[in-house]
Amino acid sequence: MLAGGVGAARFLRGLITSTDPASLTIIVNTADDDRFFGLAVSPDLDTIVYTLAGLAPRGRGWGLAGDRFECLAALGRLYGGCGWFRLGDRDLATHIYRTDRLAAGAALSTVTAEISRAFGVTARVLPMSDQPVRTVLGTDRGRLSFQRYLVAEGARPVVRTLRYRGAARARPAPGVLRAIREARAVIIAPSNPFLSIGPILAVPGVRAALTARRGPVAAISPLVRGRAVTGPLARLLRRFGHPVSSVGIARCYRPFLDMLVIDRRDRDDAAALERDGCRAIVTDTVFSTARRAARAAQTLLMALEIS
Amino acid sequence: MLAGGVGAARFLRGLITSTDPASLTIIVNTADDDRFFGLAVSPDLDTIVYTLAGLAPRGRGWGLAGDRFECLAALGRLYGGCGWFRLGDRDLATHIYRTDRLAAGAALSTVTAEISRAFGVTARVLPMSDQPVRTVLGTDRGRLSFQRYLVAEGARPVVRTLRYRGAARARPAPGVLRAIREARAVIIAPSNPFLSIGPILAVPGVRAALTARRGPVAAISPLVRGRAVTGPLARLLRRFGHPVSSVGIARCYRPFLDMLVIDRRDRDDAAALERDGCRAIVTDTVFSTARRAARAAQTLLMALEIS
Repeated sequence: MLAGGVGAARFLRGLITSTDPASLTIIVNTADDDRFFGLAVSPDLDTIVYTLAGLAPRGRGWGLAGDRFECLAALGRLYGGCGWFRLGDRDLATHIYRTDRLAAGAALSTVTAEISRAFGVTARVLPMSDQPVRTVLGTDRGRLSFQRYLVAEGARPVVRTLRYRGAARARPAPGVLRAIREARAVIIAPSNPFLSIGPILAVPGVRAALTARRGPVAAISPLVRGRAVTGPLARLLRRFGHPVSSVGIARCYRPFLDMLVIDRRDRDDAAALERDGCRAIVTDTVFSTARRAARAAQTLLMALEIS
Repeated sequence: MLAGGVGAARFLRGLITSTDPASLTIIVNTADDDRFFGLAVSPDLDTIVYTLAGLAPRGRGWGLAGDRFECLAALGRLYGGCGWFRLGDRDLATHIYRTDRLAAGAALSTVTAEISRAFGVTARVLPMSDQPVRTVLGTDRGRLSFQRYLVAEGARPVVRTLRYRGAARARPAPGVLRAIREARAVIIAPSNPFLSIGPILAVPGVRAALTARRGPVAAISPLVRGRAVTGPLARLLRRFGHPVSSVGIARCYRPFLDMLVIDRRDRDDAAALERDGCRAIVTDTVFSTARRAARAAQTLLMALEIS
């Protein structure tokens, strides 16, 4: 699976009830990684690991369920505010550990494997790259990092340009290309194609590996009736000249996409998708509960002839 | 005041009720500083700042009152144990801030001033030096850092040698020598002369400044009837050839000590002290409450002709 954060996690909650998590390799966007208070934070990696560990909260797409914010409040007093990025007390341990290990010279992929193991996660979670890649958005309010755009500015600024800084010099993390080549199926999570999956595809070698593989590549559309289930996707599709629909999503993943999971309410898109050479799998894609996600996952796994 | 951690803090609780904290400069031992989980921890500086802020717990000599240990528990899971050094959730914010600022190139004295300000502390708290100095104990269980000796090993190993690594190359932090020269009185806190005050005296220039100043230098004995109020002092005095008594303490601070505050139960030591050229101030030196510490502080300030 290629995954971002929240959207991917919602689908994953269902997928892991339908298949052995140990059979999964999840290649995660790291272009939203950032430093807060000097600590190395990898929001998407953590969301995926916490979700796989069953410790992600139900109501929100980040952090650990039931976490408190004592340390963050104290940091706010020391830094004079600056609390726009929320880090819970137990969540902070992950960032302290990651920062410590990276400073000691460990690769992000090694550290991620260690964190996964500590959380009892059996799926293999890989960062897309051990080299830093950063999504930089050119907006009407200036150049913004992804976290600042999404969290501090509430995704309100108008995006004009999108750049994955460092991507050209990055290498896929160990295991990424092999997993793409050898997996029975590649699933692209219902994440934002520009902000979450785009950075993974921008790592040299990833797009070629997807195009070269013989087994199927499936994506789950993060749109329902032209609206993103989470985040600022519709405006980005429009900005970058794609239809704001499942068809637009499929075009983001041309030429390697074989099938797209779309919502029942978008079933009329199926014909257009098929014309583009992409098979449409129609189901319910609003993964408000793990059970709904599980149903969609089962439908997809059947289409992929895996279950 | 020259200060270590716990012992100094107990006396300080009383001193600040007897004199304006803004008139105090506290020069603090940093030879117990250490890294835990990659974070820069300065136990004595924090104990002093938290005490001055009125946020130190009553029952123990470290951390913040009412602090929780959610993050530490999570760190323990990531590091596979290693919880012998206790760091609370709000306390951790101080270490995260310090680590971040030091990594950005700020001096420890600058960071300490920032932390003091954030905690509303009006006294000037100075690290003894901006350069790292580390107490290393040669023991029957090998070479140990101070924290490992005291906290992990419960001060049980037999100490053979004591070294303040880095002291010869260290410089007094900005303001340290001037404060020693210009203060109306220098007070040496009831801290361990070897483990807490020794490192401060080992910073080049400090001992000379104390010897050269004209105003009084007073110390409070950390011993009552040959027993340390806190910590492993008696064995260290014996090991380094001093009497295990107020007289031994006074000899640690020769030749610059003018007066020593001793407990009523040690009043028989007064004559020997006077023979050594040191005036004895007899009072109650078990600072189990802030009120007891205040009484001793008032007695000392009167002897120093400050109040």
